Amino acid sequence: MKKQIAILGSTGSIGTQALEVIEEHSDLYEVYCLTANNKVELLAEQAHKFKPAAIVIANEARYDELKSLMSDMPDVKVYAGAQALNEIVEAGPINMVLTAMVGFSGLNPTIHAIKAGKTICLANKETLVVAGELILQLAQQYHTPILPVDSEHSAIFQSLVGEDQNPIEKILLTASGGPFRLKSMEEIAHVTKADALRHPTWDMGAKITIDSASMMNKGFEVIEAKWLFGVDAKQIQVLVHPQSIVHSAVQFQDGSVKAQLGVPDMRLPIQYAFSFPQRLHLSGERLDLFKAQHLEFFEPDLEKFRCLALAFEAIDKGGNMPCIVNAANEIVNRGFLEDKCGFLQMGDIIAETMQRATFDKNPSYDTYIATDAEARRIATELMNK
Amino acid sequence: MKKQIAILGSTGSIGTQALEVIEEHSDLYEVYCLTANNKVELLAEQAHKFKPAAIVIANEARYDELKSLMSDMPDVKVYAGAQALNEIVEAGPINMVLTAMVGFSGLNPTIHAIKAGKTICLANKETLVVAGELILQLAQQYHTPILPVDSEHSAIFQSLVGEDQNPIEKILLTASGGPFRLKSMEEIAHVTKADALRHPTWDMGAKITIDSASMMNKGFEVIEAKWLFGVDAKQIQVLVHPQSIVHSAVQFQDGSVKAQLGVPDMRLPIQYAFSFPQRLHLSGERLDLFKAQHLEFFEPDLEKFRCLALAFEAIDKGGNMPCIVNAANEIVNRGFLEDKCGFLQMGDIIAETMQRATFDKNPSYDTYIATDAEARRIATELMNK
Repeated sequence: MKKQIAILGSTGSIGTQALEVIEEHSDLYEVYCLTANNKVELLAEQAHKFKPAAIVIANEARYDELKSLMSDMPDVKVYAGAQALNEIVEAGPINMVLTAMVGFSGLNPTIHAIKAGKTICLANKETLVVAGELILQLAQQYHTPILPVDSEHSAIFQSLVGEDQNPIEKILLTASGGPFRLKSMEEIAHVTKADALRHPTWDMGAKITIDSASMMNKGFEVIEAKWLFGVDAKQIQVLVHPQSIVHSAVQFQDGSVKAQLGVPDMRLPIQYAFSFPQRLHLSGERLDLFKAQHLEFFEPDLEKFRCLALAFEAIDKGGNMPCIVNAANEIVNRGFLEDKCGFLQMGDIIAETMQRATFDKNPSYDTYIATDAEARRIATELMNK
Repeated sequence: MKKQIAILGSTGSIGTQALEVIEEHSDLYEVYCLTANNKVELLAEQAHKFKPAAIVIANEARYDELKSLMSDMPDVKVYAGAQALNEIVEAGPINMVLTAMVGFSGLNPTIHAIKAGKTICLANKETLVVAGELILQLAQQYHTPILPVDSEHSAIFQSLVGEDQNPIEKILLTASGGPFRLKSMEEIAHVTKADALRHPTWDMGAKITIDSASMMNKGFEVIEAKWLFGVDAKQIQVLVHPQSIVHSAVQFQDGSVKAQLGVPDMRLPIQYAFSFPQRLHLSGERLDLFKAQHLEFFEPDLEKFRCLALAFEAIDKGGNMPCIVNAANEIVNRGFLEDKCGFLQMGDIIAETMQRATFDKNPSYDTYIATDAEARRIATELMNK
């Protein structure tokens, strides 16, 4: 029987590549549900091609438009709004939910999917960044597997296959270093969004590309890795690896390091999450180490990339601090894209928000909602000063 | 209960490092038996320290000497000769046999250990190079696990843990390239044994160091990998990687490459074979990729390193051809160490022996014995011409 997959955020970079994987393995997978935030045209196009049971547009204002685009497909149910997202992931036939939407709003539907026991293919970073402790506890309680889709976490996950009994000594989390790796502090102060959107190795959405440029993305990945693999943040070492070939690695207590390598292709970690523990054939380019010729590894510059240091600080502090950082970062990230704040200012505003927002060592789900709102308000104020 | 280990070749490089591992984990492992070819003093010293049930000196001429060195240890049984080796590995209490002796003579005791169902920690290359098909068939018949100890094969083995259901697309077998990697053909023609014995990254015995310099060692590893991991030689790619940090890797059909990395330390693969699937703490240096900084990968030069090409040719031909290559190589390797032949001559003599020796597509154990003798005779004649 084919596995039924729900893709939350099907019109984004991960979502569209997930559909490519499903298309290549249509004998194994079927789309049960697709969702998007705003892009009704692409969502309707995908729905015509993959014929899911249901589609959801998160922005209710676009419902009528979507409904009319789908008028020739009466078998596809069309819903709108955040609540519809929470409900659709619980649908009986669904086996797996790919959480590929961007931002804090991914948290609630993910919680619903976990409680419904749907295997989570986790691409929404914010879920674990904001509420890692809560999510892990729910996953355990509901016996719901969480499989990482981020290339780095997938690499760690792949390196850990068959090593269940062997404690992790260290996680080596690689980072491309982004487009500003070789720039001076002076130069970085004046980079533009156009500069930041030119990522050297990975083709991704705008939000995550800016987060990559500031290395906040890597900071979030540190937090995610801590929760996914049950290690202390001190056990996670970030390595700037401009070639993006070693996707990450794990060091065991015998000193052995296992790494996963490959060409930068997000279809691989997406497909692996779908097919785990089996590997399916994936068409496309193979790694050619003769062509790559040399792989470099550098220590990250925490002065230039203050956001990375702030993320380590946040996970060290614990409680709702990562939630504060995430909220402030969503504001400054958008602010940078809208020319409302400079590149280095992003770190300044996040740091200041960390000082001002109400800290809670033992947050509940409601605390996260309140913290997220408060930190967004503070960061917005700071940005508009 | 402690695992009882027999170390065949305990006075060599692998043997002595295996004893270090056993000493570090004396709560888990005990030496049941130690054997050596000629080094009676070191063997006696090891026996005094580890108090095995028995020791064997292969060279019978050294028996009296060993016996007298052991006169204060009446509980340690002392034996001599090839037949004693075959018998001792069958001893009831033994759980694992580390085959760390050098050369063709390792084959027979390994076969006895396999038939006795003792887990083989395989460090003797010749076993699989000469008689891979026979050995694999016996291991299957007697349900005897064969765990690789070579760093490259251990790396592949480690990369395959938990991937049993996933076919191998390609094996990436790394090679340091040896001390002559950057030399011209002209220069290589005049290298001396002293040049060859200066290996850049690994500290090993003389035979294997010369084999590394000629890359015959890598050719043998290709043959071993073919048998150990059930792939076609065409699926094995040799990568010259001068830093010896990536110990080898496996590519799966989804394009994902898993690699094992580490500092060059033979204690790791030895210990892993002992403790598999568990990993034990190993004291010592950890990999520092910031220090390593860059990892390089080059295609091997099959003109300069003809021995590697000959090994590929031999495994492609199959039958007793790898046995012929191994025998000829043992002769020229010793010849080179004794200044009886030049570096490039080694390849010439092996190639000529491959032409002259009797080819057998379906060799039995007795064929291997006859082939080995014939090829040695031919290679010796060619060398002394």
